[in-house]
Amino acid sequence: MMQFKRRKTRVVRIGRIVIGGDNPIAIQSMAKVKTSETDAVLRQAQDLASAGCEILRVAVKDEADARAVKTIKKSISMPLVADIHFSQRLALLAIESGADKIRLNPGNIHKRKEVMEIARACRLHRIPVRVGLNSGSLKTLKRGAGGRRSSRDNGLADIMVKEALSYLRIFEREGFYDIVVSLKGSHLVDTIWAYRKMSRHCDYPFHLGVTASGLPEWGTVKSSIAIGALLLEGIGDTIRVSLSAPPAEEVQVARSILQSLGLRNFGYEIVSCPTCGRCEVDLISKARELQAGLKNLGIKGSGRPMSIALMGCVVNGPGEAREADIGVAFAAKEGLLFKRGKPLRKVSFRDSVTVLLKELKATGCCGLRR
Amino acid sequence: MMQFKRRKTRVVRIGRIVIGGDNPIAIQSMAKVKTSETDAVLRQAQDLASAGCEILRVAVKDEADARAVKTIKKSISMPLVADIHFSQRLALLAIESGADKIRLNPGNIHKRKEVMEIARACRLHRIPVRVGLNSGSLKTLKRGAGGRRSSRDNGLADIMVKEALSYLRIFEREGFYDIVVSLKGSHLVDTIWAYRKMSRHCDYPFHLGVTASGLPEWGTVKSSIAIGALLLEGIGDTIRVSLSAPPAEEVQVARSILQSLGLRNFGYEIVSCPTCGRCEVDLISKARELQAGLKNLGIKGSGRPMSIALMGCVVNGPGEAREADIGVAFAAKEGLLFKRGKPLRKVSFRDSVTVLLKELKATGCCGLRR
Repeated sequence: MMQFKRRKTRVVRIGRIVIGGDNPIAIQSMAKVKTSETDAVLRQAQDLASAGCEILRVAVKDEADARAVKTIKKSISMPLVADIHFSQRLALLAIESGADKIRLNPGNIHKRKEVMEIARACRLHRIPVRVGLNSGSLKTLKRGAGGRRSSRDNGLADIMVKEALSYLRIFEREGFYDIVVSLKGSHLVDTIWAYRKMSRHCDYPFHLGVTASGLPEWGTVKSSIAIGALLLEGIGDTIRVSLSAPPAEEVQVARSILQSLGLRNFGYEIVSCPTCGRCEVDLISKARELQAGLKNLGIKGSGRPMSIALMGCVVNGPGEAREADIGVAFAAKEGLLFKRGKPLRKVSFRDSVTVLLKELKATGCCGLRR
Repeated sequence: MMQFKRRKTRVVRIGRIVIGGDNPIAIQSMAKVKTSETDAVLRQAQDLASAGCEILRVAVKDEADARAVKTIKKSISMPLVADIHFSQRLALLAIESGADKIRLNPGNIHKRKEVMEIARACRLHRIPVRVGLNSGSLKTLKRGAGGRRSSRDNGLADIMVKEALSYLRIFEREGFYDIVVSLKGSHLVDTIWAYRKMSRHCDYPFHLGVTASGLPEWGTVKSSIAIGALLLEGIGDTIRVSLSAPPAEEVQVARSILQSLGLRNFGYEIVSCPTCGRCEVDLISKARELQAGLKNLGIKGSGRPMSIALMGCVVNGPGEAREADIGVAFAAKEGLLFKRGKPLRKVSFRDSVTVLLKELKATGCCGLRR
């Protein structure tokens, strides 16, 4: 598997998850219900954990939310991050309640004395802080409120980096370095530039994301490009895909990003062709059937993901199926089963997925890997 | 809008679409029905054109398909590309039938004499050729068929570039340079490396894509990362997103990629937050309502895309809404309408999308742009 040279970063512990250094790039998401409604939060936390979420964040908007952190923590194994805005008091309360990390927004908690006090409380409780900038709440832009700044022309990325660095200095003067940084813009090019630039100024691990990226049909694309481009450069230690969608969808996209880049392994990948006029079978519905069957098999990752091919014609079919761990390449309505690079036998279109799943079960999935 | 320095490439004309040089990065897709069933092809062509497809490709598997090129061309305005494998005869027939470009796969049409004859026919008909490699049909890998090659460890990208260059020499010796190149692997990292490397060896425009990238939930991510990363480096002149899905979905993803990077403008973008425990309204369903309403408005692109924000709370809401051309930021259940950077008036959650759409209609969409 291809490896990229990762940016050297400090190691930061968030509850039982460790990020930075050579640790796996962790996936996080956020509960999208009122935090003090703990039953609803726990239901979403369950969905998120099943989807593969590794760090859970909740918004702390009032005292009830801050206190709920304690209740939620008792029932989940994911580390819990408290997302704080505007209020130093709520930050301190969330820390007291046992948050595994707190996220501060330099755009709305920035009095030096307040920030220093939060840093001291974090040190006492041995938890890190995420310094989380968003382009939508930058101080520099707010100051000129009323008229619109042509922020992109004036270097939004530069403004973000400058505000982040000035905020970090408050912590550093306090001797506090247990920090994760994020610089999320709603435009992906700003976001990429901000992280790239920031990577030259510090060794804190980065939390990657594009903010307010919209509905999944747009947000998936934006997040994949920005997070993908940065990871390809070795930048990024934990990722959050923001989508206007149920949170488990964010985790699915995050997993796809990391596995596509060979950075994590969540079990398997389906290699299936887009089909064209050459294809004489309904390959797309078979690919769906295969995907559903694989979910039930519960293949767990070890080494690299198992690659399972379903190809519609003789052009790339045999080649892709041969490269895969197991696969079927169709010629007209008949398929040829490949396993570990070798053609085994013919299979009918109808039985193809059943045969693939049976082979996977019979040999033990890991036995297939070469 | 951010601009990247594009790789300098030759200009290639495909019917009425020109790619390479400073021309817009064109979107293409492929019909997924038998080419000789021209009614079915034309129905898909209509869907594709409506979705924003600019170049249509069809598979030519037999003589009937090659002849159908003529019929299809009469009824569509998109340039038509004939996708040829294995048969020089079908290539010549498709050229005779009026194809605007042909795609050849060096993995299965490689006899020097045959390739030269195709090049001569293309020159006669003044149409370009795409030299389209796929990792699934590489000669080098086929030669050792039977055992599986650890292709990625042995530098699949290098093999692809080597085979492409050797194939290109056949055309170049014939004095034929009207060429587009693609180097698609099913693994995105191989694909990125192959294009990057190839970009240093020639000035032919590139057709970007990841082959056999699977169902949309995976393929969208893979294609966005690979195509996005290359475009960010200035590489790429036309793109095709391959998905195991109806072809119009490929075009939607392609548009999202190009617009997210600021390379094309298809009218508008919705900036909406992922929501969290702070949000007291069902923002996600409102974003869906907004998207549906915008589709009906039919905003056409000029300059940069119109940005329309729908934000769930006061943290980033006012900032994002102010940066957008028009937007609503909610605080609890009440929203504040922003237009051209200025707060205008309060709107209820229920009426928010209606108000946004009304404002867009009233002012004329372009009037909003600053």
